[in-house]
Amino acid sequence: MGAAMKLTLVTGTANPALGESVCQILGLPPAARDIRAFPDGELRVEIGESVRGHDVYLLQPTGPPVERHLLELVLLTDACHRAGAARVTAIVPYFGYARQDRRATGREAVGARVAADILAIRPLARLVAVDLHTAALEGFFGAPLEHLTAVPVLAEALRPERPEGGVVVAPDAGAAKLAERYARALHFPVAIVQKARVSDTEVSVRSISGEVRGRAPVIVDDMISTGGTVAAAATALLEAGCRPELTVVTTHGLFVGPAVERLGALPLGHLFVTDSIPQTVAPELPRRVVGLGGLLADAVSRLHSQQSLGDLLVHE
Amino acid sequence: MGAAMKLTLVTGTANPALGESVCQILGLPPAARDIRAFPDGELRVEIGESVRGHDVYLLQPTGPPVERHLLELVLLTDACHRAGAARVTAIVPYFGYARQDRRATGREAVGARVAADILAIRPLARLVAVDLHTAALEGFFGAPLEHLTAVPVLAEALRPERPEGGVVVAPDAGAAKLAERYARALHFPVAIVQKARVSDTEVSVRSISGEVRGRAPVIVDDMISTGGTVAAAATALLEAGCRPELTVVTTHGLFVGPAVERLGALPLGHLFVTDSIPQTVAPELPRRVVGLGGLLADAVSRLHSQQSLGDLLVHE
Amino acid sequence: MGAAMKLTLVTGTANPALGESVCQILGLPPAARDIRAFPDGELRVEIGESVRGHDVYLLQPTGPPVERHLLELVLLTDACHRAGAARVTAIVPYFGYARQDRRATGREAVGARVAADILAIRPLARLVAVDLHTAALEGFFGAPLEHLTAVPVLAEALRPERPEGGVVVAPDAGAAKLAERYARALHFPVAIVQKARVSDTEVSVRSISGEVRGRAPVIVDDMISTGGTVAAAATALLEAGCRPELTVVTTHGLFVGPAVERLGALPLGHLFVTDSIPQTVAPELPRRVVGLGGLLADAVSRLHSQQSLGDLLVHE
Amino acid sequence: MGAAMKLTLVTGTANPALGESVCQILGLPPAARDIRAFPDGELRVEIGESVRGHDVYLLQPTGPPVERHLLELVLLTDACHRAGAARVTAIVPYFGYARQDRRATGREAVGARVAADILAIRPLARLVAVDLHTAALEGFFGAPLEHLTAVPVLAEALRPERPEGGVVVAPDAGAAKLAERYARALHFPVAIVQKARVSDTEVSVRSISGEVRGRAPVIVDDMISTGGTVAAAATALLEAGCRPELTVVTTHGLFVGPAVERLGALPLGHLFVTDSIPQTVAPELPRRVVGLGGLLADAVSRLHSQQSLGDLLVHE
Amino acid sequence: MGAAMKLTLVTGTANPALGESVCQILGLPPAARDIRAFPDGELRVEIGESVRGHDVYLLQPTGPPVERHLLELVLLTDACHRAGAARVTAIVPYFGYARQDRRATGREAVGARVAADILAIRPLARLVAVDLHTAALEGFFGAPLEHLTAVPVLAEALRPERPEGGVVVAPDAGAAKLAERYARALHFPVAIVQKARVSDTEVSVRSISGEVRGRAPVIVDDMISTGGTVAAAATALLEAGCRPELTVVTTHGLFVGPAVERLGALPLGHLFVTDSIPQTVAPELPRRVVGLGGLLADAVSRLHSQQSLGDLLVHE
Amino acid sequence: MGAAMKLTLVTGTANPALGESVCQILGLPPAARDIRAFPDGELRVEIGESVRGHDVYLLQPTGPPVERHLLELVLLTDACHRAGAARVTAIVPYFGYARQDRRATGREAVGARVAADILAIRPLARLVAVDLHTAALEGFFGAPLEHLTAVPVLAEALRPERPEGGVVVAPDAGAAKLAERYARALHFPVAIVQKARVSDTEVSVRSISGEVRGRAPVIVDDMISTGGTVAAAATALLEAGCRPELTVVTTHGLFVGPAVERLGALPLGHLFVTDSIPQTVAPELPRRVVGLGGLLADAVSRLHSQQSLGDLLVHE
Repeated sequence: MGAAMKLTLVTGTANPALGESVCQILGLPPAARDIRAFPDGELRVEIGESVRGHDVYLLQPTGPPVERHLLELVLLTDACHRAGAARVTAIVPYFGYARQDRRATGREAVGARVAADILAIRPLARLVAVDLHTAALEGFFGAPLEHLTAVPVLAEALRPERPEGGVVVAPDAGAAKLAERYARALHFPVAIVQKARVSDTEVSVRSISGEVRGRAPVIVDDMISTGGTVAAAATALLEAGCRPELTVVTTHGLFVGPAVERLGALPLGHLFVTDSIPQTVAPELPRRVVGLGGLLADAVSRLHSQQSLGDLLVHE
Repeated sequence: MGAAMKLTLVTGTANPALGESVCQILGLPPAARDIRAFPDGELRVEIGESVRGHDVYLLQPTGPPVERHLLELVLLTDACHRAGAARVTAIVPYFGYARQDRRATGREAVGARVAADILAIRPLARLVAVDLHTAALEGFFGAPLEHLTAVPVLAEALRPERPEGGVVVAPDAGAAKLAERYARALHFPVAIVQKARVSDTEVSVRSISGEVRGRAPVIVDDMISTGGTVAAAATALLEAGCRPELTVVTTHGLFVGPAVERLGALPLGHLFVTDSIPQTVAPELPRRVVGLGGLLADAVSRLHSQQSLGDLLVHE
Repeated sequence: MGAAMKLTLVTGTANPALGESVCQILGLPPAARDIRAFPDGELRVEIGESVRGHDVYLLQPTGPPVERHLLELVLLTDACHRAGAARVTAIVPYFGYARQDRRATGREAVGARVAADILAIRPLARLVAVDLHTAALEGFFGAPLEHLTAVPVLAEALRPERPEGGVVVAPDAGAAKLAERYARALHFPVAIVQKARVSDTEVSVRSISGEVRGRAPVIVDDMISTGGTVAAAATALLEAGCRPELTVVTTHGLFVGPAVERLGALPLGHLFVTDSIPQTVAPELPRRVVGLGGLLADAVSRLHSQQSLGDLLVHE
Repeated sequence: MGAAMKLTLVTGTANPALGESVCQILGLPPAARDIRAFPDGELRVEIGESVRGHDVYLLQPTGPPVERHLLELVLLTDACHRAGAARVTAIVPYFGYARQDRRATGREAVGARVAADILAIRPLARLVAVDLHTAALEGFFGAPLEHLTAVPVLAEALRPERPEGGVVVAPDAGAAKLAERYARALHFPVAIVQKARVSDTEVSVRSISGEVRGRAPVIVDDMISTGGTVAAAATALLEAGCRPELTVVTTHGLFVGPAVERLGALPLGHLFVTDSIPQTVAPELPRRVVGLGGLLADAVSRLHSQQSLGDLLVHE
Repeated sequence: MGAAMKLTLVTGTANPALGESVCQILGLPPAARDIRAFPDGELRVEIGESVRGHDVYLLQPTGPPVERHLLELVLLTDACHRAGAARVTAIVPYFGYARQDRRATGREAVGARVAADILAIRPLARLVAVDLHTAALEGFFGAPLEHLTAVPVLAEALRPERPEGGVVVAPDAGAAKLAERYARALHFPVAIVQKARVSDTEVSVRSISGEVRGRAPVIVDDMISTGGTVAAAATALLEAGCRPELTVVTTHGLFVGPAVERLGALPLGHLFVTDSIPQTVAPELPRRVVGLGGLLADAVSRLHSQQSLGDLLVHE
Repeated sequence: MGAAMKLTLVTGTANPALGESVCQILGLPPAARDIRAFPDGELRVEIGESVRGHDVYLLQPTGPPVERHLLELVLLTDACHRAGAARVTAIVPYFGYARQDRRATGREAVGARVAADILAIRPLARLVAVDLHTAALEGFFGAPLEHLTAVPVLAEALRPERPEGGVVVAPDAGAAKLAERYARALHFPVAIVQKARVSDTEVSVRSISGEVRGRAPVIVDDMISTGGTVAAAATALLEAGCRPELTVVTTHGLFVGPAVERLGALPLGHLFVTDSIPQTVAPELPRRVVGLGGLLADAVSRLHSQQSLGDLLVHE
């Protein structure tokens, strides 16, 4: 079915550069589209060419401002659906609201499910996401979700800078499985920083599982928002005697709030991040940006020609 | 069913003052709630008190920034629903995206239906709106929608300032039925400004149906965004010899873009507007703000005690 | 996807002649089908040939008797769906219940939404309608709706009879945008008849915006039911000094109740109407019937071969 | 929940007399409602009094014209739902399209499921039906269906006329279980007429299981439409030597097509039928009409006060 | 659409032999799949090869243990759907819970609808079933259901053993239509055994309609569970003087509980049954197993290549 | 709403003793119900008393055999819904299939979402679960889910046996947050056992974060299935020099496969487990069973009387 349809890629405003990158690799011009805001801020989207019968991929990470990018994505889905697209797939490299995956006290919203349900108001054949904050988010969607991973491309980029005697570090328990995947790719041991209490009264000390003394830490996480988790882990690592030259690797770099300040205060050798979110944020922060264009182009190409995604997916 | 449930009113951040006004009239404290944005802009909402088994009314106009206010409303609905509210009613005095009620060229979204479907992802017993841009929006929602009108309260406010020899003016054909309703309330004749072409080549001249020469125009519209429609109508009215003292009456005052400049250039005697959207926008614009608190409190009170809304509704 | 499927057109009993016309233009035999009523009036529909894997178009305007035609259309959709049609598109040239698009007093049904939801009980890929009474009906359907216009074919038919010094007249405010479209096609100015009140006590006088004195009016409307609106507009035009030779153009001619009497009393030069509804109604009424077969065949052909409908759609 | 709500009964136009009967028994005035057809046949329904928070019962059998009565019922449901009814229950004493419960050849509709799905487009708490053609129709509805039986009231009416040496006869295999239920109520044996073939070449002879010679047959069926089944059974019974004085009992009397002629040709002692469908049909047919008002009033009363329906239901 | 997709057949664990048979006839290797139970009994299913874009047929009768086979089928549907199958069709030769098609006393479940709704939680293009207990089950599913019949293949197998002077016997009224279909295929007359009461006090005697004395009965039923119905019919037939050599034919042979004992006690000449359920059950029971592989392979082949199923379907 | 309804608790067959315990605490007789299996294994459920208008709680953990208990729960929900229950809440103390919350390789099912969607086929007002394997399962359900915790009652039971110098141990990273909650209740420090690799070639060694030498470990987990995780953690703890007297605490004790053998091989001082699953499994295993009756009775009581569950919920 796929191959007989024309392939069309529509890029929202959340990351046009990434869209262009995917298109270039696919040898495909990005579809003409007009996305404008009226003076009162309401968005108006229009697809600029016929997509009737096409196999359409909408590329839109839902990074900040999340609501705007989310609604724009839904409007684009609606427009493609009404315009006769045979199949619409949403490529959401970064999925906002992923951390609100449960109620903590009983009277909050489950924001991740709300975001998933909003995306579901128009028929989506499939969603594609990269290194989700929680793998269980797959179960929040009615439509199939392909969970890609940027670990191979980030590990590949890191390899030339791979420190001697390195150790992959998960800055909290939630990143443990991600760290395992990096460790396999980099042939490093793994360590995990976590909150622990040494006694009933001493609270919230960071403890480290695994050997880090004298080693060069490669801190990995799926996302960095304000940098708090990474900074706390770094402090614990340094106190534990690691080499004072940190490598930080993350798929999603939001770098909001005190992120620049916090990361700037660290002995940061390298910071690797993908372009899932445009890395024009926090421009004063030195980083090495690894493009996701190849990974996403590969996924689009295989989905369009009905081939297995197998090796592009997260395996945990 | 209603009266046996406890009545709770939760106000979003889009118009807390209006919420307080409604609560004060109802003799009801606004429900405690905590709505915050994380550093990356994601919203977190929490209801601060038990709503289990309550009859909850969520007050949130979806004015600018529309996406944020819309998502916040959905998150609040989700939170109330999960927290066990027996019934949730959304009070949306101003409903954003109302003008995107059709495709104009074939490849746009139908934004109003998208917004309606987003609100519908969680069970809403009912929506309450005021002076919708298009009455047919009622058909966009699966849930019942009560379409209230602010015409009586605006007409009441206007009455002391009611000009001698006035004429109610619809600034375009879409406002014709609204103008009729004002005319009945004010005992004025009605006139309609509309685009017309006098010949094949002369385009888009405004023509006026009804007598305005020497009369004091009361221009009425459901909403004013950039002021373009009102300004063009005013020009046509003045050219047609109306008295150079305009009264402008609108339910929803967005006043964005060049609105202040445009309205400021008119011989504006009075500008009446409700507080459906906080009238802290465009502070340099003199206006008379008419509170919707009474109307909405009345609607909430009747809905809660299962009484007819009859006379509060738009009748066309 | 479309082109690989076989194209099949099934005509209901509401307008078999129009179905044959579409089929003839497409060079396609109408699909065999058996539609019968049992003695107690229950309908039994059967598709007479295999539609498994086909791209099926069901042609059925929902004119009087509306309920019967509506139910027959749903039964046909059910039969095609169960019989394995790959895609079913409903062509509903005239859409009944379109005027019930809101509640007027609070305790009625929203008939148009009810009709839309009834059509939606079986999977319809798409609906195709012509000159809907309200363009916003698009938002009543979950499935995409293609809103075609008969204005070009009606204007084309009218051109040889185009009166000198003509003026396109909208008989009420709701027809204003339609009149604009005719005016552009005919290179005529436009005038609008509307209800107005010259004072507080004088009610409901028809007033005319635009110049009609000495001009030949071409009254246009999306539909004529009992002819009341057109007759009242004609009276107002004649009183305003128009030439006593009226041209009336409408897409949908129901001509029920006093329509023949009312239209017969007018100085009617020409009456143009399409065959959206079989023009065997009111046989004593002279009229020029313009076939929609070409327009609908074009739409079917493009939908089937996945081409843009662009220029066939209403643009407002 | 029920008892705290006000009880309201709304009668459609399909059987207002039955509605009045139910109301009288309940000591309840029928709710004011206005149901009219426009000149083009479109229905307009309006509830004439507030039903906000009420427990509403809509009484409407969907006998001929089925489509009209079905749509009217849906419009009433929509109107009650929008007007704020807390709970809407549809009482459909006769359910049209019940016989289309499967496809017979592969390309028909399953009309009974279509009718069920049409009723389901608006929230119905429950349906109430009487002596359905197929008990399995219960599974066609998503909402709960209470399947009442008129056998007790019909048997009670029949008792004074109970023939000596009677035998309950099912005129075809489908009525076998119904006949069992009558036999238990009347203390009669049961016989079944059915199509059989005595050899490979002799087709479709009616054969009778059970002893009928010299007995007075009481033919029972859920419905009589054209009378064909009953007439054929009668012929077979007479040939088998039954007493030439037939009693015929049916819940639903449609009496369409050749029914009067066919039944008139039989030695018909008594014909018992309920008023599920107004027995103003086929006025020349002598019959004894047994009112369902008591049964339905009992069901409504119990549903409203949340009591068990147990003994009113079909038990098979 | 179908033919362009690759055809894949996945067999659940309920009847792998039947799956292999279908595959062999189609010249198609069965798809690799891994279905395992964890130590706590939870099932884990995995499709072993890419099905992206494929036309997938899942073969799984839901015989005992019904819940396990039903859930496994749903898990397989979920896995195929997520893995990108273009279309999933469930082949359920025996459909469990079919007899729970109504409530008998008011407070039970409608098990057949529950099973249907469970299958519907993932998108199924279509279901294929064989000789359903009640044909009206078609209306329980939202998706189209193709109701195949094994009568032709069973009749064909029976033909060489066709007794002289045979009579097809329905062991109860529910099997009457099935018996008619066998009678047509075998050129035999038909007889029906049914419960009857000869008087008010004598209950539940089996009576026989049609001539059986001296004839060789061929008892037919859609399914045999404990054998009670067949055994009771046999007793009545023998008492009525039939030849003491019974042939029993059934599509679905569950043979649970006292089935072996009951059937073993009969003068059973032949027992014909299909392999809809693996005929490894009740191994001590002699029977002739007729394969459904050909019928199902034919159905799959036609569905895949978008051809009519016409002559494979039950026609009643 | 709740308090006006009658409270009814129906217990499935998965854990009748727990149901009786809850009823006893609530002073409420368990509702009569009849749950039987036919000889072919199909379940038949019947509620034995009227639940019309009642507030019904269905208690059924979905432990082994999971499919049977799951289907029985759905059948009970269906029966209650059809019998007129005003509100049905499912109490599922142990939720089976919770570990299948994502695809690991791309072609499996997401079993937890399948189970959630099966429960959702009938209207459930709410689900109540205890110590879910993954808190994010809340987002798998459309209906609100109350996530209770047994930590307080288990900690309370443990307190008298609280070892001197104890340490709460999470046997893997997934149990880290649970361990934190126990640590707060017991005033103990916390340690976490996790898989780590000390180098590129040495795989899967268990490492421990936190101090355990000389301490008495209290290993906590949400569930124990085969005991593999706990046994591996115990080995690591003993190697790390902990005191050779282990306390193991878990909410859900499945104890399947080699569980008895594995746990029996450990220096097990105490084993605490709740009765979420009947602790008649693995009878040879000594354990202390802590009843959940009080917790669940409290939850039911508060839900019924519309009070906040706040302090019964998991807070993470």
